[in-house]
Amino acid sequence: MTDAPDPQAAIDAQREKHAHERDERVYEHSAGDEQPGIPFVGAGPGHPRLLTVAGKEALEGADLVVHAGSLVNSELLDAYCDDAELVNSVGKDLEELVPLMRDAHEDGRAVVRLHSGDPAIYGAAIEQMDALEHEGVPTYLVPGVTSAFAASATLRTQLTLNETANHVAFTRPQGRTLDAEDDHIAEFVGMGDVTTCVYLGTHAVADTMDRLLAAGAPPDTPVTVVYHASWPDEDVIEGTIADVGEKVDDAGYRASAMVVIGDAAAGASYERSYLYGGWANRGETESESTSDD
Amino acid sequence: MTDAPDPQAAIDAQREKHAHERDERVYEHSAGDEQPGIPFVGAGPGHPRLLTVAGKEALEGADLVVHAGSLVNSELLDAYCDDAELVNSVGKDLEELVPLMRDAHEDGRAVVRLHSGDPAIYGAAIEQMDALEHEGVPTYLVPGVTSAFAASATLRTQLTLNETANHVAFTRPQGRTLDAEDDHIAEFVGMGDVTTCVYLGTHAVADTMDRLLAAGAPPDTPVTVVYHASWPDEDVIEGTIADVGEKVDDAGYRASAMVVIGDAAAGASYERSYLYGGWANRGETESESTSDD
Repeated sequence: MTDAPDPQAAIDAQREKHAHERDERVYEHSAGDEQPGIPFVGAGPGHPRLLTVAGKEALEGADLVVHAGSLVNSELLDAYCDDAELVNSVGKDLEELVPLMRDAHEDGRAVVRLHSGDPAIYGAAIEQMDALEHEGVPTYLVPGVTSAFAASATLRTQLTLNETANHVAFTRPQGRTLDAEDDHIAEFVGMGDVTTCVYLGTHAVADTMDRLLAAGAPPDTPVTVVYHASWPDEDVIEGTIADVGEKVDDAGYRASAMVVIGDAAAGASYERSYLYGGWANRGETESESTSDD
Repeated sequence: MTDAPDPQAAIDAQREKHAHERDERVYEHSAGDEQPGIPFVGAGPGHPRLLTVAGKEALEGADLVVHAGSLVNSELLDAYCDDAELVNSVGKDLEELVPLMRDAHEDGRAVVRLHSGDPAIYGAAIEQMDALEHEGVPTYLVPGVTSAFAASATLRTQLTLNETANHVAFTRPQGRTLDAEDDHIAEFVGMGDVTTCVYLGTHAVADTMDRLLAAGAPPDTPVTVVYHASWPDEDVIEGTIADVGEKVDDAGYRASAMVVIGDAAAGASYERSYLYGGWANRGETESESTSDD
């Protein structure tokens, strides 16, 4: 077996291949189906009970699990990976991971790649999948629960609240300077009825709040930080754009936080939806079939 | 037992109660924990394998499941609800649902309220929870996989792609007219590096595209519609803001669609992330701990 070629070249080749025609598997399979090849599984936010049934079955049948290190709760690995070899991906680059997974797959071992949250949100799944596919190894995605949904469950709220929070944005800061022209966080916050979920390490919360203040965001906007949402050491820190950064720094946490900006996370009031079937629908045609109820 | 009081009054009372102090359960439990009372469970996008382990266990132990009718795949109910009484919530308002769930709970029956997707996204869970809590019935949320994540898994892409799609917005049209001043969809699309996920029925896709065109969105922006993501009859319809509405109308579907606007859903190219540990991090301090990898 040979080493993988240059991964960016493999990615570019895969993108070119599908630039004008979809991969036929897009039409052949529905999300959730078991498929041939290596599943890229969303582990969910951390709690073993918040993994999907599909993810649990993949882990229980795995011979090799490549996981995202400290981003995945070790309780989840303990619960479902009794029989598998575990490899931590942290510190390993594509040039190392791709041959590792390819060779195990070609040796007939059941390989699972486990990412935290949902692989579609700030994951790095697709580049590994493209590189593996370029090597002839089939792959597919298994979606998961993202940490923003665990945070809202912990906070006993919805990210959308009728008339209060009509939209949700998932974001993280782009670049490293306060001159953040490509950074839409302040725009999302400025819309007023958007719940803005910032995917961050706790170390970056204070800096991000400073950037928001520099961009003119209202200092008294509610911010709720859920540290390690759904983990045993989950914690909730509440404040505003003006003061939550210092509170998070004082808490001294070192790992992932979900930063939820807006009234919904602060437990704001809302109007009942009348979504149950139209008996009192205020003249709107909105029906349950248009919602993700 | 008495009937429920006016639900909006109950909601307002619950919001007032927690306006200045969080419910203590926010700090006592982590998302994913089993808690006393009625769980409001996110069923996920539809496929039974995309339910969480927590949701599966709740359904398997339930005596009464109140579900969101045609929004929940009946295969999921068949798979996990063998022993439960099933009640369809469609056509029932809060005034009917709240006493139904309260009485069953007070009679010692295990009640589960099953919403589609994740309850935090365009759900109507909180208003039922507030009304039940006001009646003395404890409740809690169990997060789920939202249909946008099933759509991205089907499309074999991520909703975020490095340098191509840096942010994600969940939205749906506000109001019914083309004068959509509270409608941020065109703003999200106009940002250029946002993947905009519109939660809609298929009947509303054409109208929504017309609104986007009226708001000045580029007509050739890619739009991918995933009908019934993760269901057995899942389908993918591809086009642009200019033409996807007509394609969806021609397909004649009548149920939920996930409308994904932007380059990520069209399989655009991207830059590899170098997120694996910093060996070649291009001078950035970004590390795996800042991502939902």
